[in-house]
Amino acid sequence: MVLVKEQEKIISYLGPRGTYSEEVAFQIHTGKHERFTPYSGIDNAIRSVMNGASDECVVPLENSVEGSVNITLDTLAHEANLFIVQEVIRPINHLLLCQAGTRHINVIVSHPQALAQCRQYLLRNYPNAELKAMESTAEAAYHVACGAPNHAAVGSLRAAELYGLTICGQNIQDHPHNSTRFVVLSKEQAVKGAGKHKTSIACQIDGQKPGSLCDILQEFAIRHVNLTRIESRPSRTGLGIYIFFLDLEGSLDDDNVREAVIVVKQKSMWFKNFGSYPVITLS
Amino acid sequence: MVLVKEQEKIISYLGPRGTYSEEVAFQIHTGKHERFTPYSGIDNAIRSVMNGASDECVVPLENSVEGSVNITLDTLAHEANLFIVQEVIRPINHLLLCQAGTRHINVIVSHPQALAQCRQYLLRNYPNAELKAMESTAEAAYHVACGAPNHAAVGSLRAAELYGLTICGQNIQDHPHNSTRFVVLSKEQAVKGAGKHKTSIACQIDGQKPGSLCDILQEFAIRHVNLTRIESRPSRTGLGIYIFFLDLEGSLDDDNVREAVIVVKQKSMWFKNFGSYPVITLS
Repeated sequence: MVLVKEQEKIISYLGPRGTYSEEVAFQIHTGKHERFTPYSGIDNAIRSVMNGASDECVVPLENSVEGSVNITLDTLAHEANLFIVQEVIRPINHLLLCQAGTRHINVIVSHPQALAQCRQYLLRNYPNAELKAMESTAEAAYHVACGAPNHAAVGSLRAAELYGLTICGQNIQDHPHNSTRFVVLSKEQAVKGAGKHKTSIACQIDGQKPGSLCDILQEFAIRHVNLTRIESRPSRTGLGIYIFFLDLEGSLDDDNVREAVIVVKQKSMWFKNFGSYPVITLS
Repeated sequence: MVLVKEQEKIISYLGPRGTYSEEVAFQIHTGKHERFTPYSGIDNAIRSVMNGASDECVVPLENSVEGSVNITLDTLAHEANLFIVQEVIRPINHLLLCQAGTRHINVIVSHPQALAQCRQYLLRNYPNAELKAMESTAEAAYHVACGAPNHAAVGSLRAAELYGLTICGQNIQDHPHNSTRFVVLSKEQAVKGAGKHKTSIACQIDGQKPGSLCDILQEFAIRHVNLTRIESRPSRTGLGIYIFFLDLEGSLDDDNVREAVIVVKQKSMWFKNFGSYPVITLS
């Protein structure tokens, strides 16, 4: 009997180590058949799939408080020809992390979005602390671990474990409904499985005609396809010309979704299909 | 004869001194009857109008390459009860600024969006330079003026003048169609004048019903009201629940616009009217 070693899949993610993207990558894979590679910058993680350095990447797409992650949308629209093969929704529980034995916190560091999401908590509990922006929540945790005295970081449980930090505040975000949608991107479309699916497309329509966006949306409405999201991004060809990102309930394997998407493609000046994918909600 | 000194208007803007917002504030006012106050942070500039510290503020709303300025939209939606009284569209011409006599540039500083907008130019001309993020283009110029050796800043002509810097690169942005929409905000609605007008509203609709957004858009289409922009932002009540910002051609003084807005307000779960305002395009 000959044992063939199964080929390892390479999964890239928005790094450095200890980010929420890493947490998600670890949660959806066993790690037995995968190797994980952090990339600095969402665009670099996505490009690693485009150039074949990795098979899939895990990047954030949207946060319930801060909205779309524009670099993800723009890279998908303007650079990449990739498919979304999975959507992962994850609640964001920010922690306040410091070195063991820290008594006074003078400076609090993190990614600007994380600081913004905890602004009221930090003002209430540390009114005199200075807030300092860093490239990521993970880098902030690393900075505190490296011995910055009287510093604390807003970051994830994974960062606390990785950098050996003490948790001095839990669930410190101001909005109770703070969750982030991550997507897994690949060159290959997902194979349809069981469970809830969504489909994502992007299109550019003739914005000069009144009602042209309405005309597109109606193609979904008459086929009872529910739109879960519409987002506009600049087409980069001039102010007032947009690309629309649309997320639909259902799969391209469903007749009504497929038919609507075909018609919308025909009516669009520019069109991109990001495929159909299953949705996972982590706790 | 008694001379009554006309009351000065206080105009706040996104500072520090030397930002594009300052350029716009100076371009649309003579300065004879106004006093200008820079604020750090778009939200702080907007709040200064809300709390009466200033009469109007000038803040960026949207860039043709980078898209919406989220903090402006979110503050308008969640905090402020203000009206847009003017829209100013201004082409963005980024300059590379250094101290006189600089021969080698090792570090280039600016706001991350400005660096991103000039990425290809900087890579082509300064492949070995390190790019460093600062709070604003104006702060970057100030940093270079303060004597950082071999440093250059991406910034505005106003910043060059203000901080006595030499221009070593002009129109260095990668996209030829780089312009920004600024808005002037006030507690009072604008009085209708001549020329092109736009109207802005925000609404939250029942996203669970298929076609509910389409239903709203149709109210404009059937009245031949052209939508120039639709933008979604998180409602902050949960992932997948959005506020839509809509910009319409025409004024609330026009019967078709007013009627459509009244019906949309009735159909919305939450609604905000930012008023009608004239549009200026600067060269």
